[in-house]
Amino acid sequence: MENLKSSGTEALSPTVALVQFAPLLGNIESNINSLCHLLKAVKADVIVLPELASTGYAFSNRSDAFQCAESVDNSSYIRFLTSQAASLNCFIVSGFNERDENNLYNSAILVGPSGFIGKYRKIHLFWNESDIFEPGDLGLPVFEVAGLKLGLLVCFDWMFPEVWRILALKDVDLVAHPSNLVLPFCQQAVAVHALCNRFYIATANRIGSEGSLHFTGGSVLVSPLGETIIRGSVEEPFVGSHTIDLSLSRNKNITPRNTLKESRRPECYTFLTTVEKK
Amino acid sequence: MENLKSSGTEALSPTVALVQFAPLLGNIESNINSLCHLLKAVKADVIVLPELASTGYAFSNRSDAFQCAESVDNSSYIRFLTSQAASLNCFIVSGFNERDENNLYNSAILVGPSGFIGKYRKIHLFWNESDIFEPGDLGLPVFEVAGLKLGLLVCFDWMFPEVWRILALKDVDLVAHPSNLVLPFCQQAVAVHALCNRFYIATANRIGSEGSLHFTGGSVLVSPLGETIIRGSVEEPFVGSHTIDLSLSRNKNITPRNTLKESRRPECYTFLTTVEKK
Repeated sequence: MENLKSSGTEALSPTVALVQFAPLLGNIESNINSLCHLLKAVKADVIVLPELASTGYAFSNRSDAFQCAESVDNSSYIRFLTSQAASLNCFIVSGFNERDENNLYNSAILVGPSGFIGKYRKIHLFWNESDIFEPGDLGLPVFEVAGLKLGLLVCFDWMFPEVWRILALKDVDLVAHPSNLVLPFCQQAVAVHALCNRFYIATANRIGSEGSLHFTGGSVLVSPLGETIIRGSVEEPFVGSHTIDLSLSRNKNITPRNTLKESRRPECYTFLTTVEKK
Repeated sequence: MENLKSSGTEALSPTVALVQFAPLLGNIESNINSLCHLLKAVKADVIVLPELASTGYAFSNRSDAFQCAESVDNSSYIRFLTSQAASLNCFIVSGFNERDENNLYNSAILVGPSGFIGKYRKIHLFWNESDIFEPGDLGLPVFEVAGLKLGLLVCFDWMFPEVWRILALKDVDLVAHPSNLVLPFCQQAVAVHALCNRFYIATANRIGSEGSLHFTGGSVLVSPLGETIIRGSVEEPFVGSHTIDLSLSRNKNITPRNTLKESRRPECYTFLTTVEKK
């Protein structure tokens, strides 16, 4: 499997938690304090936090975003997540304002008890994000932690069925989906992406407002059968967890004679990668 | 545009109708009579009928299916649809048990006032259908009728986000989706496919039972905003119509700086067509 990275111990029925809160713009220390408080209550193997949970979202310009961005090898936020992962004995996925030399990325990072494991950089940038961040350049990595295969997407990626499908073809059990959603559609839509692709999706959304943006909360965990297992408040901080059944995400049989992969007709899909953008 | 075929006059706000009924297995004449009765009440520019509306679905073997299959150039069913399209001044999409020399296809045909216009052959065959039908070999054609760009899919194709996306990339306004659904998931899922792809979807499902199969009715018309505009009964014959707004299906702006096509990253999607099936 391309990009497969293995880490940690096996859990046949891992517990997945969503944490929803309102990061404070540009203030990593305050966001660490908020998370420190919220994470006390969590018992889970994999915890998913919102997009850009380290720094907040609505920077007025690139310079402001740059000032509080961190590189993965020298990050107070990752040191904090590592300490939490160690004390809770879990893995944490979080949105992360990532600096790599002079570039910024809207990333999702995976951290375990021993520290940083890997990252995904948001492929589809929303609205004015391209004034600040570079488009993701790391493809769609898959990680093996807590006995499951984990894929990462960030927020607006949800509107692109292509990336969900690719993660399914890479045998992902769970897509961790840190988000800062300003519209309410995604929370319904992920149930259909989960059903068509037969995996779990954990969409951890934020709450609160920044400037004219109001975030819609309502974080969800959905099952490979398209059921919504957890749904968070739309306004309040929220922590929810659920033990997931990996036999569901590993059963790709749609009928006794159709499996998700074998029933595909890739020879019919070439238009998806050959079409010009305009 | 690949496969674009033009026919008929323009209508800025075409009306789309769904017709739901219970075809009788192997009996084209009876099904023509049922439709003759139902179509009397319809005023629409495009009418969508269920999958295999000419002959029913659950053939016990290929020979039974073959006996009532028709070729498009000598079909009592297409002659009937043509007469209806002429008298109603409309276009009709219907599921069709198609014979082409010794092959059978689970097809969707498009018929207008002047006769047969074109066809799609179901790409993703469900369960035991592959004992009877050949997999579709005509790609995903697009037709221009009644002032709109029309794509065709059949039933189980709904679980494959790839084909919806390709039709969006071909600028389709409406996907006509003749179906014989035995599960209730699709009727919810098409709203998300419509939203992610910004087109209308008309899923015309059948009702009734054949052998151990019970069909779930509930035909739906959904909008490019993911709204369900029409929802049919789950048990009864149903005719519903709605005038659609093509400005919605032609507006592919997701934000002022994101369009459906330009925000895609096809260079990141090559796994969709290069991955091996097993």
